[in-house]
Amino acid sequence: MPRDLLCLGIDPGIGTLGYGLVRQRGGDLSAEGYGAIHTPPGLSLPERLSCLFGSLEGELGGVRPDLVAVERLYFGRNTTTAEMVWQARGVVLLFASRLGVPVLEPKPSEVKMAVCGYGGADKRQVQLMVTGLLGLKRCPSPDDVADALAVAIAGLSMCIGGYWG
Amino acid sequence: MPRDLLCLGIDPGIGTLGYGLVRQRGGDLSAEGYGAIHTPPGLSLPERLSCLFGSLEGELGGVRPDLVAVERLYFGRNTTTAEMVWQARGVVLLFASRLGVPVLEPKPSEVKMAVCGYGGADKRQVQLMVTGLLGLKRCPSPDDVADALAVAIAGLSMCIGGYWG
Repeated sequence: MPRDLLCLGIDPGIGTLGYGLVRQRGGDLSAEGYGAIHTPPGLSLPERLSCLFGSLEGELGGVRPDLVAVERLYFGRNTTTAEMVWQARGVVLLFASRLGVPVLEPKPSEVKMAVCGYGGADKRQVQLMVTGLLGLKRCPSPDDVADALAVAIAGLSMCIGGYWG
Repeated sequence: MPRDLLCLGIDPGIGTLGYGLVRQRGGDLSAEGYGAIHTPPGLSLPERLSCLFGSLEGELGGVRPDLVAVERLYFGRNTTTAEMVWQARGVVLLFASRLGVPVLEPKPSEVKMAVCGYGGADKRQVQLMVTGLLGLKRCPSPDDVADALAVAIAGLSMCIGGYWG
């Protein structure tokens, strides 16, 4: 099992999508880049999905991660927002698949478990742990970016059996 | 308003996706092509979405429709199947958007209304009307293909104010 792995984590969304690149080298984790992609609400859904895919290709088409982690979604009901985010996630999985590396789909509880050691951790706890584990001065914003870094950490954890600290 | 329009209709799906090209010339409708795209159930979801997008590009990347119609979906509950089909629909909308022509999203009731004149028509009535309106010898199969042709007819109807017969 290699001990140097780069994981691209993605928190899917239609209005705002977060992404983060986390490298595990031995027992150390570091953030190699992160950011958010926004799509204009004034566009039609097909246009927003095209914008999203184009931005993913533009901002991340050149990265060469060893794996990609895309968070699973949970919606209690089929709302218009849920439908749009599912469709956006389809486009994200397409992009991820085309990178030609394994694509993992951690559940929210698995992300919390990997980052906090507790599957019921709240958003604030996840953000504090992400900031600490990656040695960042402050928690990246918006929340989608911190979430994406947490998803990347979870991806590495699923791959390596993750222990660091 | 042009009286000669080619519409690509798509019935989104993850296991089987139907597509159909319908031309309206004056008061006449004709099918210029139709078919189904299948993705292997043994693949992961990211792989199936990539397979779907690749097949859409391969089979339909060369067509030059004037508009695309992608049927809206309705699921009562968030099931695993519903989630997969929503994600497939995201990939379909991305493909449609990239064709650079208007993308319409008729509801199932609008498709039935356009084809049968009645929004509560059943599947069999829709298939009979599609076969008749397009002058086909038999109804195309699988059902997804007949549905896609109906969606294309609905797209033309939304565009032209559709009357033929």
